[in-house]
Amino acid sequence: MSNNKIKPQTLRGFRDFLPDQMIAREQLIETARRVYRSYGFVPIDTPALEYAEILLGKGGDESDKQVFRFTDQGNRDVAMRFDLTVPLARYAAQHIQELGTPFRRYHIGPVWRGERPARGRYREFMQCDFDTIGTASNAADIETLLVINDLLEALGVERFTVRVNNRKVLNGFLEKNDLQGQAAAVLRCLDKLDKTGRDAVTVEMQERVGLTADNAARVLDMAELTGTPEEILGQLDGILQGNETGQEGLSNLQDLFRTVRACGLPEERVRLDTSIARGLDYYTGTIYETVLRDLPEIGSVCSGGRYDNLAALFTSQQLPGVGASLGLDRMLAAMEEMGMTEKSSTLADVLITMFSQEYVVEYQQVARLLRQAGIGAEVYPEPKNIGRQMKYASRRGFPVALIAGGDELAAGTWQVKGLECGTQREVSTEQLVDAVKGFLGGRGISGTK
Amino acid sequence: MSNNKIKPQTLRGFRDFLPDQMIAREQLIETARRVYRSYGFVPIDTPALEYAEILLGKGGDESDKQVFRFTDQGNRDVAMRFDLTVPLARYAAQHIQELGTPFRRYHIGPVWRGERPARGRYREFMQCDFDTIGTASNAADIETLLVINDLLEALGVERFTVRVNNRKVLNGFLEKNDLQGQAAAVLRCLDKLDKTGRDAVTVEMQERVGLTADNAARVLDMAELTGTPEEILGQLDGILQGNETGQEGLSNLQDLFRTVRACGLPEERVRLDTSIARGLDYYTGTIYETVLRDLPEIGSVCSGGRYDNLAALFTSQQLPGVGASLGLDRMLAAMEEMGMTEKSSTLADVLITMFSQEYVVEYQQVARLLRQAGIGAEVYPEPKNIGRQMKYASRRGFPVALIAGGDELAAGTWQVKGLECGTQREVSTEQLVDAVKGFLGGRGISGTK
Repeated sequence: MSNNKIKPQTLRGFRDFLPDQMIAREQLIETARRVYRSYGFVPIDTPALEYAEILLGKGGDESDKQVFRFTDQGNRDVAMRFDLTVPLARYAAQHIQELGTPFRRYHIGPVWRGERPARGRYREFMQCDFDTIGTASNAADIETLLVINDLLEALGVERFTVRVNNRKVLNGFLEKNDLQGQAAAVLRCLDKLDKTGRDAVTVEMQERVGLTADNAARVLDMAELTGTPEEILGQLDGILQGNETGQEGLSNLQDLFRTVRACGLPEERVRLDTSIARGLDYYTGTIYETVLRDLPEIGSVCSGGRYDNLAALFTSQQLPGVGASLGLDRMLAAMEEMGMTEKSSTLADVLITMFSQEYVVEYQQVARLLRQAGIGAEVYPEPKNIGRQMKYASRRGFPVALIAGGDELAAGTWQVKGLECGTQREVSTEQLVDAVKGFLGGRGISGTK
Repeated sequence: MSNNKIKPQTLRGFRDFLPDQMIAREQLIETARRVYRSYGFVPIDTPALEYAEILLGKGGDESDKQVFRFTDQGNRDVAMRFDLTVPLARYAAQHIQELGTPFRRYHIGPVWRGERPARGRYREFMQCDFDTIGTASNAADIETLLVINDLLEALGVERFTVRVNNRKVLNGFLEKNDLQGQAAAVLRCLDKLDKTGRDAVTVEMQERVGLTADNAARVLDMAELTGTPEEILGQLDGILQGNETGQEGLSNLQDLFRTVRACGLPEERVRLDTSIARGLDYYTGTIYETVLRDLPEIGSVCSGGRYDNLAALFTSQQLPGVGASLGLDRMLAAMEEMGMTEKSSTLADVLITMFSQEYVVEYQQVARLLRQAGIGAEVYPEPKNIGRQMKYASRRGFPVALIAGGDELAAGTWQVKGLECGTQREVSTEQLVDAVKGFLGGRGISGTK
């Protein structure tokens, strides 16, 4: 390479996607979109760049430092979006009159954070959110859970657990024990229970938050309730007797579990977990976390919850809502680790090899015939050695190759070769579509019908 | 609104997409993706941000000024991509060993340019490119044309014309007339022929480029050749007698039109237009422009061409290629103007209205039943006045609504209402899927099978 070449490289924490990775990514996104749409959610998009004042100051100083922010050509203070929630708040404040409520939107797009890159943490990554805005109805909370369930199922995951809780239950419990003043600190401690264990959290609650040993024990007893959702709900009913906030949370959870049962979701699929609080301050009702039972260490792949007021910074109109976000990069990493992603770098089923440039017409004609039957077909562009073309077909992952030179074309026939089974058949152009379908055996990549 | 609210607004030249706009956008992208895939193109993605040195200096000073460029937290000189071609060059230089050739990729994503916003010109817009890299074979040029044809057809456009030319024909012609030294200037003049007409271009060629009256006339006579592609090719054959470059271009065009005819594309669909040169300096072979015959004033909606060396700035490996780019925003604007986009803000077919929160279980159960049959179903989250719910259904564009209160649910029946025809039927839960399909009459939004 000569010295005056620019070194081709990406920025640290930013990624190129090679075709096999991008195919898996597009398929995941398509599945999410299909599930969201089937519940009536509709897509929106917002700009990558916004006025800095719109985006900043929402997640604390630490997260502000991670925002890519600069002065543009017009001397405006601008920033790249670091999530899809703040833009949604701005968007809802600006357009909700026109949109009307309830407003169900999904939003799938990249966000940027100048974090220190680490394994599985990038400076550019996709978010994949869905929310129902403008209703406080628990029906939307229940539906959010069903969407999460259908999403994971549609991705081909069976063994997952959605952990559900309700902040009203937590808040009611704290109220009843006169601990509402320390609510944030207590919830932060609880969030660590999974990682550090009961003893460490007890110490932290006493020493840092100033709880009595008695209160710390009471909080942890509540957080560590076990059993079926119905059993836990029964115990909580006793604990929260007479507390309105808590009872409201309980009633919401009861309706949720009743619907989950009626819809036939497997018993182990949805658990009531009184220990989860979720970091973000703005959740006020139901909260969700989703763990893969075969890969719990990867953390929650789909989380969310209910909030009272989405857009308080931008409008005085109160907009309650509920939603969740699929962790796309994490989910893909998990699916790869669980061997659920096929390593393919083609989305077409058939490679049509080329014997000579003079047959381009015939190759393109037969490619059109296949495409019209819903079978993707790629024509190799050069009359290279046939062994090299077959190697290309294998490397890319084509299930079927067509071979035809002068003799075959004169006779109106094609050699159809299955690249997995290695068998080959000679068929006429009329029989070709059926023959290819036979080789694909219903497993066509490009959606053969 | 209180004074301490932040004004919800987007930056000039940046857009929010409301659901109806975004649905049309997603559908266009899905169609493009489907067509690209059916030809064996595979997706890639590259970062929004790159080292500035990677992106800058490729399109001249004027376009460098439009690049959003800044210093990041790590003191790096970074910039937002302004097209998908420069990132592709960098990507190919970096990964081509691993990818192998021929490499066919599509890339659909946003790009950013700080241009003065104008009607149809934004600072953030989507590009939708496909290219075949690593082959000089004319088979790839022919295929590029077929992709453009299938893309427009798949979008539902019938009346369009792809104007094709070959830079080798132009270059050969200039060589033969000893004008190769003025090639760039002459081509720039030619590019204006459509807009300013023959007389103005003649003056410009003589006064600015310094051509003799004779040479100017000769260039314009060549550029204004009319007739069928075959007729024009015949005339060019005479004009370019003995010029190797020109004859090579002619031969490529001959093969292209032969294939186009054999594939049965309508006569008026593909034209040979010897006047088009396309601004970009790097095209070296076939060039394409696509005009909508019912809306020619909107300009080319899909353009591209062949280039000799994609990634010269980054690698000494020569990478020839050919490709084109669908002008997504322009195409959408055109489809809207031609009344081809449906104004819908739902992607689900059925709105299940809510009589009472206590029936959430039944509503969600029936929604699941419909979704399992491929029919998208949204459950209204609150037991509002039924008139208001029906108004919501109409506004969003649902074709069908389900209504069931206590009586219906006790009897196991549903009122199915067609919102376009206004008729209503009472059916049992067992009959429901068929009844809804009957109302949809094969026109289901969510892809009922």
